[in-house]
Amino acid sequence: MRAAVFEGPGNIRIEQVPDPEIELDTDAVVRITAAGICGSDLWSYRGYGTRQPGARIGHEFVGVVEDVGAEVRMVRRGDVVISPFTWSDGTCEYCVHGQHSSCVDGGVYGEPGHDGAQGEAVRVPHADGTLLVVPPVLRGAEDQLLPLCDVLPAGYHAARSAGVGYGQTVAVIGDGAVALAGVIAARRLGADRIVVIGHHEERLELASRLGAAETVCGRGEEAVEQAISLTGGAHAVLECVGAQSALDTAVAVARDGATIGYVGMPHLVEGLNVARLFSRNIGLRGGLTPARAYLPELMGEVANGHLDASVVIDSTVDLEGLPDGYVAMDSRKALKVRVNI
Amino acid sequence: MRAAVFEGPGNIRIEQVPDPEIELDTDAVVRITAAGICGSDLWSYRGYGTRQPGARIGHEFVGVVEDVGAEVRMVRRGDVVISPFTWSDGTCEYCVHGQHSSCVDGGVYGEPGHDGAQGEAVRVPHADGTLLVVPPVLRGAEDQLLPLCDVLPAGYHAARSAGVGYGQTVAVIGDGAVALAGVIAARRLGADRIVVIGHHEERLELASRLGAAETVCGRGEEAVEQAISLTGGAHAVLECVGAQSALDTAVAVARDGATIGYVGMPHLVEGLNVARLFSRNIGLRGGLTPARAYLPELMGEVANGHLDASVVIDSTVDLEGLPDGYVAMDSRKALKVRVNI
Repeated sequence: MRAAVFEGPGNIRIEQVPDPEIELDTDAVVRITAAGICGSDLWSYRGYGTRQPGARIGHEFVGVVEDVGAEVRMVRRGDVVISPFTWSDGTCEYCVHGQHSSCVDGGVYGEPGHDGAQGEAVRVPHADGTLLVVPPVLRGAEDQLLPLCDVLPAGYHAARSAGVGYGQTVAVIGDGAVALAGVIAARRLGADRIVVIGHHEERLELASRLGAAETVCGRGEEAVEQAISLTGGAHAVLECVGAQSALDTAVAVARDGATIGYVGMPHLVEGLNVARLFSRNIGLRGGLTPARAYLPELMGEVANGHLDASVVIDSTVDLEGLPDGYVAMDSRKALKVRVNI
Repeated sequence: MRAAVFEGPGNIRIEQVPDPEIELDTDAVVRITAAGICGSDLWSYRGYGTRQPGARIGHEFVGVVEDVGAEVRMVRRGDVVISPFTWSDGTCEYCVHGQHSSCVDGGVYGEPGHDGAQGEAVRVPHADGTLLVVPPVLRGAEDQLLPLCDVLPAGYHAARSAGVGYGQTVAVIGDGAVALAGVIAARRLGADRIVVIGHHEERLELASRLGAAETVCGRGEEAVEQAISLTGGAHAVLECVGAQSALDTAVAVARDGATIGYVGMPHLVEGLNVARLFSRNIGLRGGLTPARAYLPELMGEVANGHLDASVVIDSTVDLEGLPDGYVAMDSRKALKVRVNI
């Protein structure tokens, strides 16, 4: 089959790779119909992280089950399915507590020895604990489905970790796809006033359309001062970037007693001065999103029309055009790219 | 009147100071019957922090109202009262949300320009928002009352911030008075198994008597390994020290998805590597205890016999003997000293 291969920074190629096969009785093989390019794929593309040349890439997909192992009971051939960006057994002590991203036998698509999701098919370990069948109303609605793999659960994880509730003022740090999903989540969870702090006018306009009452475009102290004056100190803060400046901004705009829900993968982060948090009772919760924990609820919400994050996908390519998709996202010409396969 | 005065590191003296008077209509003056020496007083005594020679000290007291300002409605002359270690107006946006330690007009006893609690009397700003009348059953029970000023609310703040609940395994870092209060709180909140990590055999024995299933005496990697093997990773961690090593231990013994409730005033803390927390979804909440928020509930629990932290007070002095009390606590001969006045 053909699949995307990371050949080094700035170098994604479509190559011929071995067809996936059932290796364990708990596996499924899924023929992919649509995949996404994620902001975290860009870290590899830009030369950060540990991905080695020759490695596969991509972790967001929707597809059709092609084959299942002997022990798989929850999906069967022909089912239209969706997967979170990690697989998980669904039965370990972490999975049963909703902490699927710590599954004792879990992993992420594209890690060494495993298929990535940017390709024609993928082997899915622990299919029963990982895949969900897509309800009829959403079949073919790839723009609504793809955000469920990572972006929308991440926005929810930020909002839930921060304890977003009715009547609150919520600050969202960032204007990427996850931050926009954070706006959607905060609104759905009852936030009264959402203030988004980002760098890109057109993405902040999108945030406004999604329900942000105010947006702040800028960096540094001036932007922080503006955000503080707009929020009066946020009851909950969603940190959706993962850079030191974003973390510092999150602390600055938090009201005393607030919790920061952080889901931005930490890159180039020095650390957090706990003494700065102490006297103000600022909390920090979140981390790598246990997307599988959120997926059943969120797919139901998308199916019944209460949630729609399709707006974060603003560009579509086919598999041959995938390298161009990376270029478009890297240059910020595209917010999120869908790959039709 | 006579009161303790900080004359520099290692130098606490009992001196003649001006009698407190009503300065604002919302003030009360309280004649102190018993005060406590707190672990945080020791930081000044050891030369850390910003307290200047000539400053007053002490922030835990029980006493009798001697005078009230014209606007005070909740206490009157002759009432036996207790105070948290901070005063707060009880009406600002922070107080009404239980974040009294961030009160817009709050403060802590002994701060510049204010009486400390280690003396014969104290001016209490915002008496209505600060003081609580002691119920008859607890009058004279100073050993049960004094922990309510700071230690017991701090233990509860750690436990509540960490989300301690029924059936959990809880790790407590530290074996000082606050850590022991953390054991009491975790037990009362339903923890199934409490593991305490400290340095002092006799204090850890006390922890066992208070309900700790296991104790680990030691520092560094060996102690951490032992704690991890005993807990299997704690569902909730109470960090009751405030040193870098304690914070590092807290992260190490936390189960993925756990929250660390931290109430140890950060001293000599470098910071927290957020990348270490991210993949494991370790949260951090807590900070300076909003003691007034916990005081009504906890005083009720003490009065009805469900809580008793009197065991943390193991030494009693009179006002003239107060300097000896500091020596005893500094040398760890005493866990917590009560001062009869």
